[in-house]
Amino acid sequence: MTYCVAAKLTAGLVFISDTRTNAGIDHIATFRKLHVFGVAGERLIVLQSAGNLATSQAVISLLQQRLNTDWVNLNSVSSLFAATTLVSDTMREVLERDMQGVLAKGVDMSCSFLLGGQIQGGAPELYNIYPQGNFIAATEDTPYFQIGESKYGKPILDRSLDCFSSLQDALRCALISFDSTLRSNLSVGMPLDVLVYHSDSLNIPAGFRVEEDDEYYNLIRQRWSAELSKALTELPEPSNCYGL
Amino acid sequence: MTYCVAAKLTAGLVFISDTRTNAGIDHIATFRKLHVFGVAGERLIVLQSAGNLATSQAVISLLQQRLNTDWVNLNSVSSLFAATTLVSDTMREVLERDMQGVLAKGVDMSCSFLLGGQIQGGAPELYNIYPQGNFIAATEDTPYFQIGESKYGKPILDRSLDCFSSLQDALRCALISFDSTLRSNLSVGMPLDVLVYHSDSLNIPAGFRVEEDDEYYNLIRQRWSAELSKALTELPEPSNCYGL
Repeated sequence: MTYCVAAKLTAGLVFISDTRTNAGIDHIATFRKLHVFGVAGERLIVLQSAGNLATSQAVISLLQQRLNTDWVNLNSVSSLFAATTLVSDTMREVLERDMQGVLAKGVDMSCSFLLGGQIQGGAPELYNIYPQGNFIAATEDTPYFQIGESKYGKPILDRSLDCFSSLQDALRCALISFDSTLRSNLSVGMPLDVLVYHSDSLNIPAGFRVEEDDEYYNLIRQRWSAELSKALTELPEPSNCYGL
Repeated sequence: MTYCVAAKLTAGLVFISDTRTNAGIDHIATFRKLHVFGVAGERLIVLQSAGNLATSQAVISLLQQRLNTDWVNLNSVSSLFAATTLVSDTMREVLERDMQGVLAKGVDMSCSFLLGGQIQGGAPELYNIYPQGNFIAATEDTPYFQIGESKYGKPILDRSLDCFSSLQDALRCALISFDSTLRSNLSVGMPLDVLVYHSDSLNIPAGFRVEEDDEYYNLIRQRWSAELSKALTELPEPSNCYGL
């Protein structure tokens, strides 16, 4: 499986992806699921992928190749809406080829993407591309998207993230959301790829890989567990009517 | 959908079930999913159900009717293992009738149960009965089970519950787990049915229904949200290498 989160805040964008892929519980591997396109000073486009790895890799590869061969590519489109449409069209193209014929019978080849970034002249945006190819944009009401194993890590995002969160707060919140997911689903795994973008900077951030032994990640994991236990213990005691 | 949690602790057993059933998002209703059998001073058997309501109701009804008509019933079996086998057999009986013929084509009629309690002469036990009819027992390593919409509420249980938790702590932890689930899945709904059993008391607790306006539940929900936000803000700030 996979877990990817992206948040669109007033201050900027935060992306985190895990790197585990699996074909059965006994066949796991590490693949990057956070991909960066762009031209410094002009545009940043970040793509996160979940679902069938062959499909998502083919989509990313075609998008990369076409930067040099096609007029319409991720470096030439004039808006993030157009970029999202291009990714969606490329996904349809790959699936139309791969899902034809007898070999594809009964195999789920679908995948989904999060696309976020900013193109000069426009505001930062974040899109969620469904396996069907249609997509939605993040808003102030719903400033984040998840793809892959989303449930374990959703409560903390719902409780603590809004569009006015700082990049620091959003990053911490998303890392804790990953911790909850990693503890519960073995098919989501370290290392994590993190990318933080400041609104209107139009730079291409290097991003950061959080390894198993990452000091900061382990510190906040432990601190968070301790704080949760403490908070739970300090909640008022249930009244007698609960049958205690 | 449904969410049910049961925990087996050294101190006793804690059960919580929601009461929402739905056939599509526009067809919801309230049904009790926590059912109590037993004889005060001799045995307590608590059943929680998830899945197809027609199936689970039929199973509960047959088990109740047969208390008066059959030699082998939930009031006569000598162990919780035998009680669990009886529930499982009754479920198979209902499904063999209902899943035959053309009317059942393509409809998921399966359901699952949690069964916990104590019978004089034995220890408290807790079983998870799968839709296939086979079942597993809770242990010290895995002291709790969930059925229905389990993912949103699992991280807090994993972080904070073990077999040595007090009944108070386990109840608070399970209520918080419900809060996370209720916030995330509309098909899990209030009121909640709570039942707490003290090991070796062999009484039949009255249980308690937590309504929307329950003072204690709302207090700990709010307190928990506030504590979480505070704990998140107080985590150490991410270092610069994260790209901030």
